Amino acid sequence: MDHPIEHVAILGGTHGNELTGAWLLERWRREGTPIQRPSFRTHLLLANPKALQQVRRYVDQDLNRSFDAGASRTDMARTDRFETTPGARNYEQERAAVLQGQLETFRVIPDGVLIDLHNTTANMGVSLIFVNQSPFNLKLAAWVQKRLPEVRVYLWLDEHLPRRSASSLVERGITVEVGPVANGIVRGDLFWKTERAVECVLDFIAAYNAGEIAFDGSDELELFVHVESVDVPRDERDRIRGFVHEELQDRDYQPLSVGAPLFQTLDGEVIRYQGPEGLCPVFINEAAYYEKRIAFSLTRREVRRV
Amino acid sequence: MDHPIEHVAILGGTHGNELTGAWLLERWRREGTPIQRPSFRTHLLLANPKALQQVRRYVDQDLNRSFDAGASRTDMARTDRFETTPGARNYEQERAAVLQGQLETFRVIPDGVLIDLHNTTANMGVSLIFVNQSPFNLKLAAWVQKRLPEVRVYLWLDEHLPRRSASSLVERGITVEVGPVANGIVRGDLFWKTERAVECVLDFIAAYNAGEIAFDGSDELELFVHVESVDVPRDERDRIRGFVHEELQDRDYQPLSVGAPLFQTLDGEVIRYQGPEGLCPVFINEAAYYEKRIAFSLTRREVRRV
Repeated sequence: MDHPIEHVAILGGTHGNELTGAWLLERWRREGTPIQRPSFRTHLLLANPKALQQVRRYVDQDLNRSFDAGASRTDMARTDRFETTPGARNYEQERAAVLQGQLETFRVIPDGVLIDLHNTTANMGVSLIFVNQSPFNLKLAAWVQKRLPEVRVYLWLDEHLPRRSASSLVERGITVEVGPVANGIVRGDLFWKTERAVECVLDFIAAYNAGEIAFDGSDELELFVHVESVDVPRDERDRIRGFVHEELQDRDYQPLSVGAPLFQTLDGEVIRYQGPEGLCPVFINEAAYYEKRIAFSLTRREVRRV
Repeated sequence: MDHPIEHVAILGGTHGNELTGAWLLERWRREGTPIQRPSFRTHLLLANPKALQQVRRYVDQDLNRSFDAGASRTDMARTDRFETTPGARNYEQERAAVLQGQLETFRVIPDGVLIDLHNTTANMGVSLIFVNQSPFNLKLAAWVQKRLPEVRVYLWLDEHLPRRSASSLVERGITVEVGPVANGIVRGDLFWKTERAVECVLDFIAAYNAGEIAFDGSDELELFVHVESVDVPRDERDRIRGFVHEELQDRDYQPLSVGAPLFQTLDGEVIRYQGPEGLCPVFINEAAYYEKRIAFSLTRREVRRV
């Protein structure tokens, strides 16, 4: 172990229509026991209050694509000083700067752990998403998976989307993605499952601080490594002309066979899978990804010793 | 039979984040066979295009609470003529006036049939909702239920909410409510179930026009009659302090026993049902009803001969 971890931040409400995280924060503000551990401090940050109030994913742009791991608070302050046009930064750019500042103040950046709570309309169960494969992250994942075997681990090593996510701000960044749940509601079952997953992550950090974690290949980790994202079928004018086939719906993390139905068009045509055998789709039919041109993403299942 | 029905309107996208109806309209514009019947004309109306583009329930106010069955197109035209303040009507008020005008032009108002397509995050399956109990509506419901036994019928006789709904514009107004589906997505299975339900409704109208429907008590109808709506628990400052209990979630149309868990508070307290035995909840945990202070509505199951 290098140094013990002193600061952990939990972000909720990064997307204002994903209520589980925001409501868990509210719960933990009243009842701190589930998130308190003697060896570190846990900071709760409501990430996007205005979007939460409007029950929308975001006000101006996706907050979880608005962070900039390269910019320090000092840079941001400097920008502020010379900023002469009011409103030049939109709401989520402003929130990203404020949150990065808070995370530096709390010393989560650069050496702490950041846990960002999300919901999805896809049948992802409780998934941990990582945008890098640091030994800490992979060991944490294996440790949690051993205790909560239903937890899935998605390694989203993509050049595009994850780079400006909250979880990219620190090396030890974890997105907890829970579904299926509609936007704008809390489902009791997933609420408690999310709490249990967060508690398990915090237990790992406590064990790490106590020197109980050995990075010695003693654990087996099943993970799903990002390969590519797939768009819905579109017509020559770029309009959506179909939707996820009912036989693909809800089959996140299950291997695809060649010829499996992927989409159905509005005319009733079935579009079938033609790629390599055995890739596993994730984020199938996530509402927020329609605008990002992602009907699902393909991953490759791997088992590693960590 | 009084007169044959000459005009039917199908509304989709009344709520801009309920995609099934809007996408079915798009499908039927390409491929009209499912909705064409020789004895009447079917008109397709995309109700709220701006909300649909923004994938939001509404822009300014709920369109499905914006209609006014008492106002004729002539009244509205008169209002227009004397309107001097631009923007005095907000977007949905404007859309409601335009749609009422179209429905009068198409002669759906007053003597036709109006079918309004909706989605819900609640586990309502395919439900037909009526805001009056005209013999035509009840017979239609029984006829559809006989052919599609999974269809549920909800008679929403409430003084408040349904009065300004699209379905209240004509006596023969039907809301087709399908779920559970998250806002902002199309689920293939429910897409096709909605089409089948609409086809069945149109088949009934064709049979009615052919003089094949006898209002003679020959059919049995199971229906759920609105009793009252129930809000989530709130604290002294009127903030939500709990959510639908996981044991109640998804149990729409199933009878409640005294003592059944209804809600769980953020502190973990369980709030139990204390009302009369056997009432059946509907619209359990519908996202859009959080702001309407409805966690679910209670109904009384009845079986009638129609």
